[in-house]
Amino acid sequence: LTHVLGDVQVDVPPSSMTAPQRVQVEGLERVVDLDPYINVYQVAPEPPSLEDMRADATRLRDALRDEHNVTVDRFDSSLLKRLSNVVRENDWKVRIVTRDGEAVAITDTALHPLGLAVDIGTTKIAAYVVDLETGVTVGSAGVMNPQIAYGEDVMARITYVLKNDDGLEELQQAIVGGLNALVDQICRTAGRKATDVVEAVLVGNTCMHHLVLGLPVAQMGLSPYLAALSDPYDLKARDIGLRLSPGAGVHLLPNIAGFVGADHVSFVLAADIHNTDKVTVGLDIGTNTEISLAAHGQLWCCSTASGPAFEGAHIKDGMRAAPGAIEWIRANGNDVAYQTIGDAPPVGICGSGILDGVAVLRQIGVVRANGAMKSDSHPRVRRTDHGVEFVLVREGERGAPQDVVITRRDVNEIQLAKSAMRTGVEILLQEAGLKDDDIEQFIIAGAFGTYLDVGSAIAIGMFPALPRERFVQVGNAAGTGARLALLSHRCRESAAEFARRMKYVELTTHPQFLEAYTSALMLP
Amino acid sequence: LTHVLGDVQVDVPPSSMTAPQRVQVEGLERVVDLDPYINVYQVAPEPPSLEDMRADATRLRDALRDEHNVTVDRFDSSLLKRLSNVVRENDWKVRIVTRDGEAVAITDTALHPLGLAVDIGTTKIAAYVVDLETGVTVGSAGVMNPQIAYGEDVMARITYVLKNDDGLEELQQAIVGGLNALVDQICRTAGRKATDVVEAVLVGNTCMHHLVLGLPVAQMGLSPYLAALSDPYDLKARDIGLRLSPGAGVHLLPNIAGFVGADHVSFVLAADIHNTDKVTVGLDIGTNTEISLAAHGQLWCCSTASGPAFEGAHIKDGMRAAPGAIEWIRANGNDVAYQTIGDAPPVGICGSGILDGVAVLRQIGVVRANGAMKSDSHPRVRRTDHGVEFVLVREGERGAPQDVVITRRDVNEIQLAKSAMRTGVEILLQEAGLKDDDIEQFIIAGAFGTYLDVGSAIAIGMFPALPRERFVQVGNAAGTGARLALLSHRCRESAAEFARRMKYVELTTHPQFLEAYTSALMLP
Repeated sequence: LTHVLGDVQVDVPPSSMTAPQRVQVEGLERVVDLDPYINVYQVAPEPPSLEDMRADATRLRDALRDEHNVTVDRFDSSLLKRLSNVVRENDWKVRIVTRDGEAVAITDTALHPLGLAVDIGTTKIAAYVVDLETGVTVGSAGVMNPQIAYGEDVMARITYVLKNDDGLEELQQAIVGGLNALVDQICRTAGRKATDVVEAVLVGNTCMHHLVLGLPVAQMGLSPYLAALSDPYDLKARDIGLRLSPGAGVHLLPNIAGFVGADHVSFVLAADIHNTDKVTVGLDIGTNTEISLAAHGQLWCCSTASGPAFEGAHIKDGMRAAPGAIEWIRANGNDVAYQTIGDAPPVGICGSGILDGVAVLRQIGVVRANGAMKSDSHPRVRRTDHGVEFVLVREGERGAPQDVVITRRDVNEIQLAKSAMRTGVEILLQEAGLKDDDIEQFIIAGAFGTYLDVGSAIAIGMFPALPRERFVQVGNAAGTGARLALLSHRCRESAAEFARRMKYVELTTHPQFLEAYTSALMLP
Repeated sequence: LTHVLGDVQVDVPPSSMTAPQRVQVEGLERVVDLDPYINVYQVAPEPPSLEDMRADATRLRDALRDEHNVTVDRFDSSLLKRLSNVVRENDWKVRIVTRDGEAVAITDTALHPLGLAVDIGTTKIAAYVVDLETGVTVGSAGVMNPQIAYGEDVMARITYVLKNDDGLEELQQAIVGGLNALVDQICRTAGRKATDVVEAVLVGNTCMHHLVLGLPVAQMGLSPYLAALSDPYDLKARDIGLRLSPGAGVHLLPNIAGFVGADHVSFVLAADIHNTDKVTVGLDIGTNTEISLAAHGQLWCCSTASGPAFEGAHIKDGMRAAPGAIEWIRANGNDVAYQTIGDAPPVGICGSGILDGVAVLRQIGVVRANGAMKSDSHPRVRRTDHGVEFVLVREGERGAPQDVVITRRDVNEIQLAKSAMRTGVEILLQEAGLKDDDIEQFIIAGAFGTYLDVGSAIAIGMFPALPRERFVQVGNAAGTGARLALLSHRCRESAAEFARRMKYVELTTHPQFLEAYTSALMLP
């Protein structure tokens, strides 16, 4: 088990170039017709003569109409600059890439045009380069979001923008610079060029979405935390400094609210939550956890400040998923067993580990329902100047450089986090007039969501106690959704459609919030 | 009489801001409904609250719909960058400028948005800044085209592009730099700013059209002399480096062919040639003379290489229209009378003068029908080393610094020029199955066209011998057409429509060309 990005793969056998063809999205078992926003046409118009003096662009437009029955009503200005030379160098046999009635690229080669799908996370960027004529992912890579230099989380970056006159521009250039380097690297590895990329889909939370476009974020940092833009958006890659094909388009999936962004829309799209007949909860766990509920043809969503505990922050010995992180803990009689990533000497606890840990401590009677840790309940429990803690690993055990502990405060952090999530689920259910048992499908996305133990999550009351088979863990679904929106016209339109009708529920002002939150704090 | 640009004026009394209102275009007696491509709406949406968390763009879009029944399906990216701050600084009371379903500007003031109409001539640029809510021209100015540093005429500039790797970019930047300076100057004089300009219409010959867009021109310098682009074209001002409002759009009227450009389309539009029921010839005289014929609902056009003789080039004592230029010559008994621009001492002959001169020399028997000058026909005729010439002004006469003469070679230059024009008219008539007498209206555009003496033009066979009242001289009609396309949606669409159906006739390969040209060389 390694916690890497790109764990969901789009893969099809290369076959004929006739679209639509079926594309399998493995991680989520999605199959879509290959029908991207762009189309590629080979044309060979009659060369000009004194008897046929149509302008170059007109000649190509007419050829598209006559040879392919395709109407182009616009030529991108960058294409117009190249067109006259390219057609003459290639004896009037060229390939034209069109997008939504616009000719956006002209090429002399039979190289398939590429597409780019990017999930811009606050922490990590995951990019996929896809062959738009076969649907095959030709390469993918992940890097840290270079904006981290300006602040760890969304609020820190908003603050940076507020405090620095050129802050917004700096952050925009940082992310776009990172994207340019990433695309170059993926394309070079695949033996292609970034200028072969004719279409991109970007997703991210609302703040990342705004920062990559250079949109203002100040209003997102203050109640009522508004997006400047929630609609789906199309612009030219060059307008944000993204160095792809000169006429390449960029599509951004819609946002729902200041804290329910295009990445959540992408997850819903990838997991097909908007289409299912089943009552479905979709949960994308992060510092903010976005939750969607689909029931009886309606959609609700909310965002809840679950905090970074499951990313290892605010936990005494917490750490990100990396070698040496305890990722799995079980009761072993009255004692505990654990496992580290890479079987390395234990150095800390990652998200799935701390979740297991709290569940096990409750199971073996170390922790009470209210989260209090009984100081004499177990030989591994000790009292320190800072309070009571459970010694999970003693210094030297399996090469551990020091003790690894779970403190009472850690347990409380997990209570706050899991209560936030559970409250979100409960309030959406209330909005729909449903109860826990009505949930037929419970889909969990994200890196932590992939590796968490559902049994532990149920044990501490983070998830409702549903039969195990109703839970689905889907990995980086936002990246998959971005690829779907890249490969399928219909998926993109579908996202626009359901985003419009998805009902955003504001939790902080919800009349049931406090009661639900308080009761969800308890450990069952 | 001064030969200046901007001699045709658009002028309306400032009145209510309710569009459409009537706009009078004086020079051509055109009246159009004010119905520009852009619209301006004042909106005052409910400010956001925790109960109403629509994104800022959505809030404005909904307000446009609810308050004005207007659908906006896109926000320009530059507008999105400003929107959130502008609405908050103005308590959610703002003005939105829309263009073709896109919100392109947001403003906190009641200042009327401006439009820009430019006729980019090979030699001169004429720019008009217009109030788009009243139709009033708030300022205009003309400057030399800065591209002149790279070549006097179209062919010289194409050659410059061919011989210099960055030639196209240099020429593009030269013209755009000139436009930016010109707009700044006009706006400053009018107490406004270039960033108040939200919409521009550019016209020019096909080469100027391509150079301002940065489109390739090499193919225009070789037979069959093709345009890269002939369709009407819209792009953002920022895409060509034009510094107007950040979201401003630029419209370029269509070209017809490599040597019948958007400026001729603009003239046809201004003179309403496409709409008239009368058999109409429209003639725009320059180094190339473009000619249109409208008859029985059809349109034909051609371009003819009339050369620069009427601009004073290739004429021994030729000069541009400027103080001291002889602009008017008449027979006075067996002698001649003349008049100079500004009554200044005579220093040369401008276009209208040389035209009169040839007509008078023919009238008083100095020149034969074939253009030969009889050496003993008149006391003012003398023989020099270079041939026979007619001394129009003797050194010292009215302060003349030297003799001003008309040579036999000058007469021949005028024969070539007038024959080219006349041949164009005759061949278009043949295409339409018409004869000279069928012409009900003969419209002459351009600076020289405004000041030439129609009687002289008929006398030397440049124009058919129609009754005088059928001739109309309209001045800088291209600039007027650009203003019409700026002020009226319908005019712009009309131009696109008639340009599509206008039939371009290539003269050089026309079977009747040689015969018509040879016979037109004669002086009646």
